[in-house]
Amino acid sequence: MTGQHVLAIDLGGTKTALATAAPDGTVLHEESIPTRAAAGADQIIRRMAECGRELTRRTAAEGHGPLAAVAAVSPGIVQDDRILFAPNNPGWDRLALPELLRRTFGVQRVAADNDVRAAALAEARWGALAGVPYGIYLNLGTGIAAAPVIDGRVVRGAHGAGGELGYQLLGADRLVGAAAGRAPLEEYVSGIGLEARGSELLGRTVSTAEVFALAAEGRQRQPAVAEFLDEALDTLGVHLANLACVFDPEVVAVGGGMAAKSGGYILPRLARVLDAAVPFPPKLVPAAFDARASLAGATALALDAAASA
Amino acid sequence: MTGQHVLAIDLGGTKTALATAAPDGTVLHEESIPTRAAAGADQIIRRMAECGRELTRRTAAEGHGPLAAVAAVSPGIVQDDRILFAPNNPGWDRLALPELLRRTFGVQRVAADNDVRAAALAEARWGALAGVPYGIYLNLGTGIAAAPVIDGRVVRGAHGAGGELGYQLLGADRLVGAAAGRAPLEEYVSGIGLEARGSELLGRTVSTAEVFALAAEGRQRQPAVAEFLDEALDTLGVHLANLACVFDPEVVAVGGGMAAKSGGYILPRLARVLDAAVPFPPKLVPAAFDARASLAGATALALDAAASA
Repeated sequence: MTGQHVLAIDLGGTKTALATAAPDGTVLHEESIPTRAAAGADQIIRRMAECGRELTRRTAAEGHGPLAAVAAVSPGIVQDDRILFAPNNPGWDRLALPELLRRTFGVQRVAADNDVRAAALAEARWGALAGVPYGIYLNLGTGIAAAPVIDGRVVRGAHGAGGELGYQLLGADRLVGAAAGRAPLEEYVSGIGLEARGSELLGRTVSTAEVFALAAEGRQRQPAVAEFLDEALDTLGVHLANLACVFDPEVVAVGGGMAAKSGGYILPRLARVLDAAVPFPPKLVPAAFDARASLAGATALALDAAASA
Repeated sequence: MTGQHVLAIDLGGTKTALATAAPDGTVLHEESIPTRAAAGADQIIRRMAECGRELTRRTAAEGHGPLAAVAAVSPGIVQDDRILFAPNNPGWDRLALPELLRRTFGVQRVAADNDVRAAALAEARWGALAGVPYGIYLNLGTGIAAAPVIDGRVVRGAHGAGGELGYQLLGADRLVGAAAGRAPLEEYVSGIGLEARGSELLGRTVSTAEVFALAAEGRQRQPAVAEFLDEALDTLGVHLANLACVFDPEVVAVGGGMAAKSGGYILPRLARVLDAAVPFPPKLVPAAFDARASLAGATALALDAAASA
C-alpha cells in the first residue's frame, strides 16, 4: 500500500478520535470531536463522516495518496450488523459498522472491532506486548477488560466477545451476571464501580481519583478507604491471577485511564497476588500507550485491512 | 508418512498406556502397564521402553513400515529438560522426555506435552471440539484443568503451563496458591478434593462416587451432602464461567474420570452458571473420548511430529 494512507476512528463514550496514518503507522493528521453519546448514534456518525472525509482529503492533498482502508473501534461487542453490550451509547445496537464505513468513505477494505481489543493489538504491534508470544492486555478505566494476545493476535472469541473480564462473577453465592444485565466484577472494581462504592462508604460523592488519594494519604487518616480499596484490588488481582493460571502469559500490560492515573498504587498490589497464585508469575508492566491506545489499535486494524488480499 | 507408523505413550499416575497408530490415527496395537509411580521414574521408563519397542516391532512386522515419530504425555508442566508440578510422580522432575524418547526409540521426530492438553488436542482433532474455532476442554478427574483451543491448536502458554485451572484462587480472603505449593480450586473441587472434604463432612472415608451417590439419592436422606456438592459445583461453575467470559468459546467439552462417572449430575449445574454469567453462553457437552483421551492426544502429537519438516 505504498503511496496510500489509512483512516482510524475510535468511537468513545465521551469523545471520538480520528487519525490518518502512513503505511508504517506514522500518524499524519489527527482530530478529536465530542461524541455526545446521549444524543444518539446518528449525529456522531454524521460528524464522524464529515471529520474523517476532511482528514483523508487533507492527507491525500499532501501527497500521501488515496485512502486504502478504514477501521473503526467502539465499546461493546462489535459484530458485522450491530454492536451489542454498549449501554452508554444509545442507537449503537443498530450500527452495521463495516457497511457504514464502506458507504461513507468509498473504500472496500474496512475493519471494526471492540476498542479494548484494539488497544491490545496496539500494545502487541508497537507497545508493551511487542514480540511477546503469550501476553494479556488489562484495561482499567471506567470499565474493565482483559484481552489475551497470542503471537501478535488478540483472542477474538466465537462471538467477538473475547476479553470481557468485567462480566466475571465474584463468587458462588452471587450467580447473577450477564443474563440479568449485570457485570459483577466491573461493578465492583472498575472506575465507575470504585466511585459508586467509595461514595457509599464515605457518605458523599467522591471520584475514583479521590478514593486513591484518600487511601494513599496515610492509613492513619483514612484507613477505611485504604482497606476498601486494597480489598477491591486484591479481588481484581485474584481474577487476573486466575486468568493467568489458565493462559500462562509472559507479560501482563496494564492500560486504561485508571491505570494511567493510579498505576503506582495498583500495579504492586496486583503483582503480589500474581506472585502468590500463578505457577509462572508473569511480568506486570504499564502499557506503552495511554488514552490513544484504541486509536492506535484502529490504525493497526486499518493497516491489516489494507494489506489483506 | 505413508507406509510408516507412530508410537503414543500416556504416562499416568496409575497406569501407562501405549499405542501404535497408522497415519490416519487408527490404533494398530495397544498395551497398558502399571506405572508404580511411588517406585520412581527409572523403573517405569525402563518398562515403558521395553513395551514400546515391542509394540513398534510387532506393528512394523505386520507391514506398517518403520516408526516415524514418538510422543509421550504426562501430568505436570512438561518442558524439554524436566517435568514440573507433578507431585504424584517422584523422579519426574529430572525427566528430559524428548531426549529420552529420541534415545530410546531411535527416532528424531518426538513430542512431549501435558496429558490434559493432549486430551484437549484429541477432542479438537477427532472429538467434541472438532471444527470448533474457539473451544475449551474441561478435565474433571483426580485433578482439574481447562485447556482453551483456538482453530484446532491448544493454548500452550509461555512456559507450557496453559490450562492450569486447578491453581486458581478461591477469593481475595485466601491469597495462598502455587507459591506455597497449593492448588486452591483443585483442592476444593477435584475428585481428590471432594473425597477429602466429603470424608471430613461425613466423619468417615467416602469416595467421590459415594459423595455423588449420597447427593443424588434424594435430598431428604443426605441434604447436607447435596448442599456441599452443589456449592462445590457452583464454585467450579463460577471459575469455568469466568474463563468463558474472557475466552468466549462456542463449546466447552467436559472429560476426565469424574465427568465420565457423574457427568449427568455435574453438567446441568455447570450449564446453569454459564447461562447466568457469560454474555454468549457456550454449549456444554460431554467429551468424545473417555479415559483414552490423553493417549489419543499423544497419537495426534506424534502424527504432527511425523508430518513436521
